[in-house]
Amino acid sequence: MTEDTTKEAGPETAKQKLEELGKEIVYSVKAGKNPKFVTLSRVKSNVIFDKRGYLTLGNAKEERSFVNVAQSKRFMQTIAVAAKCHKFLEENLHTTIRGLFYQLKYSLGEDIDESIFSEQSESNPLIEDLEAALGVKRESLNLNANRKGVLAGNMKVIDYFGGEEQEIDCSKQGRSGWAIPSDVDFGMKFLDVKAKYVLVVEKDALWQRLNEDGFWKKENAILITPQGQAARGTRRLIRKLSDMGLPVYVFTDSDAWGWYIYWTIKTGSINLAYIGDDVATPEAKFIGVTMSDLDRYDFLKKLTINASDTDIKRAQEMMQYPWIKRHEEWVKELETMIKTKKKLEQDALQGPRLTFVDDYIREKIKNKEFLP
Amino acid sequence: MTEDTTKEAGPETAKQKLEELGKEIVYSVKAGKNPKFVTLSRVKSNVIFDKRGYLTLGNAKEERSFVNVAQSKRFMQTIAVAAKCHKFLEENLHTTIRGLFYQLKYSLGEDIDESIFSEQSESNPLIEDLEAALGVKRESLNLNANRKGVLAGNMKVIDYFGGEEQEIDCSKQGRSGWAIPSDVDFGMKFLDVKAKYVLVVEKDALWQRLNEDGFWKKENAILITPQGQAARGTRRLIRKLSDMGLPVYVFTDSDAWGWYIYWTIKTGSINLAYIGDDVATPEAKFIGVTMSDLDRYDFLKKLTINASDTDIKRAQEMMQYPWIKRHEEWVKELETMIKTKKKLEQDALQGPRLTFVDDYIREKIKNKEFLP
Repeated sequence: MTEDTTKEAGPETAKQKLEELGKEIVYSVKAGKNPKFVTLSRVKSNVIFDKRGYLTLGNAKEERSFVNVAQSKRFMQTIAVAAKCHKFLEENLHTTIRGLFYQLKYSLGEDIDESIFSEQSESNPLIEDLEAALGVKRESLNLNANRKGVLAGNMKVIDYFGGEEQEIDCSKQGRSGWAIPSDVDFGMKFLDVKAKYVLVVEKDALWQRLNEDGFWKKENAILITPQGQAARGTRRLIRKLSDMGLPVYVFTDSDAWGWYIYWTIKTGSINLAYIGDDVATPEAKFIGVTMSDLDRYDFLKKLTINASDTDIKRAQEMMQYPWIKRHEEWVKELETMIKTKKKLEQDALQGPRLTFVDDYIREKIKNKEFLP
Repeated sequence: MTEDTTKEAGPETAKQKLEELGKEIVYSVKAGKNPKFVTLSRVKSNVIFDKRGYLTLGNAKEERSFVNVAQSKRFMQTIAVAAKCHKFLEENLHTTIRGLFYQLKYSLGEDIDESIFSEQSESNPLIEDLEAALGVKRESLNLNANRKGVLAGNMKVIDYFGGEEQEIDCSKQGRSGWAIPSDVDFGMKFLDVKAKYVLVVEKDALWQRLNEDGFWKKENAILITPQGQAARGTRRLIRKLSDMGLPVYVFTDSDAWGWYIYWTIKTGSINLAYIGDDVATPEAKFIGVTMSDLDRYDFLKKLTINASDTDIKRAQEMMQYPWIKRHEEWVKELETMIKTKKKLEQDALQGPRLTFVDDYIREKIKNKEFLP
């Protein structure tokens, strides 16, 4: 399998859109009109859970114009951010939102009041505004996000990087695995994906355990760990592998944090609703560990740990989420934790023997025992 | 260059030592003597800063015996930990201290009072006791530590893993780099290390910046980021590269956290003093950013940020550390931060242009402008 990369809005598109934005503003000024910037509103009330299973933005718009006293500073700041991103694209160089902040501080400090960007918290939301307004991800504006996450399996990555084409064989990365970058779209291609499914394992420790056992080789799986909450690059890669027709199974702790990791991969998150389509995978299924595992594997009963108040509070909240409460299996899970005040870590599956976790996953997949 | 791996105490040695420990105990019991476990004391008063520049343990010993009521539980727990590690070595499988904890909880729960290992905080220090007593790192007891850190440069890694020998070319890992594992000693070899020096960059963002510029290629450097505070594997790798004759330059923020990262790499840490020799690199030098950079690069003055109370408190503490206060350059740095209440991030070097950071490092190295 090879991915289809024809439909993506990359740096070239981003550059064009930034130039169009610039031209519109210049046109407005020349025509004696009020220059405006319009983006989708990212307030919580405009985040919807759509029929396809994505957390995404509704149609509410946000506008800021130059001649409105309350908006003009933010308008100017937005344009400054857009201009910097355009420069990075022209230079063909990447940085981070922190690097962008320092460039803004540096170049605006001389001519204009320094306070235009005194804190990074001022520039961060403007980047999200731009992403939402232009319909491009920050990675296409040459802004790298934090990266985290590792992969092993039968697939190859072609990374066009530093003027070279490098082929990375993800089945030959030893104990380390391939480190998933921030941008898995541009200058990057996935080839020879020979696998039956994708297994996403919350903890790096368990990923290492499974990697050592050659689990992905024996089972013909792509083995990913987000190393906790999944970074944008890892979420995007899971979406892309799903687009290639691979089922995605997620394996986390049975606690508030583990569930949060799962639901973020599956439906996306409120914070990233503005790029929900790109980074969520509604097709993902939950493999475990579950509270119902306690009935099945008797030894687990003595390996539970006490749920924290946060765990219980979060479980109560999650029962109210429309995308969770419609699944009775999930409601049962959450109720069990609230009632027993116990939680279960995926690490506990190492109790009887280190390789037990392999058999656990194998059996769940064989019997198709997933939570939705 | 290829590393010399002849002198290391690996899993084979660890197994032998565990067996000797077991035999001694059996011998004591049979001879009607009191079985004992003796280890180096890891209390703060036994941590010394030695002449070579390492934080290491002094000679104070800690003993626990079976027939002493106050010690017998810990004695039994220590033996249980030792037995599990021996089993992992026999199985030739790795886990983590969390996996070990669950195995202890699982197998002791049936016959013995469950409370023998109710919290992982009970098993963790016993692992450190074993490491100190046997003179082997936990990695040689088949216990993986958290891993973090990435490397790019002209060198090859041979990773004997899963019954295969995999060669990883660290100059062909694209935007990702090679993910540094927990154990860089056993089943792993470093070949064809063709570089003039090692550059350790605190932040992954800056590592990515330099990697994109091909800095390590142009300068013939090994480029490492610990991604914040360095994990054991990364510290150990830096030590090993230094042993191969490469100078090590560390590049961090000029703030309490950045300095802590540097000093941990250089002298080791109080917590890991019991394996200080393996994970510290007294030969390391500090490249920046420094408070004195403010005098040299005028633009940086407007890119400082306010030092937090923690930064200032930590700077005051650091001035008292014997290994810091003997260097007047460092005292001056710390005093400047305390006086001006300003700190400086390495990211600020991206202010004038994204590639400025490359020139900054190049110039410091050319002029040998390091802090000790």
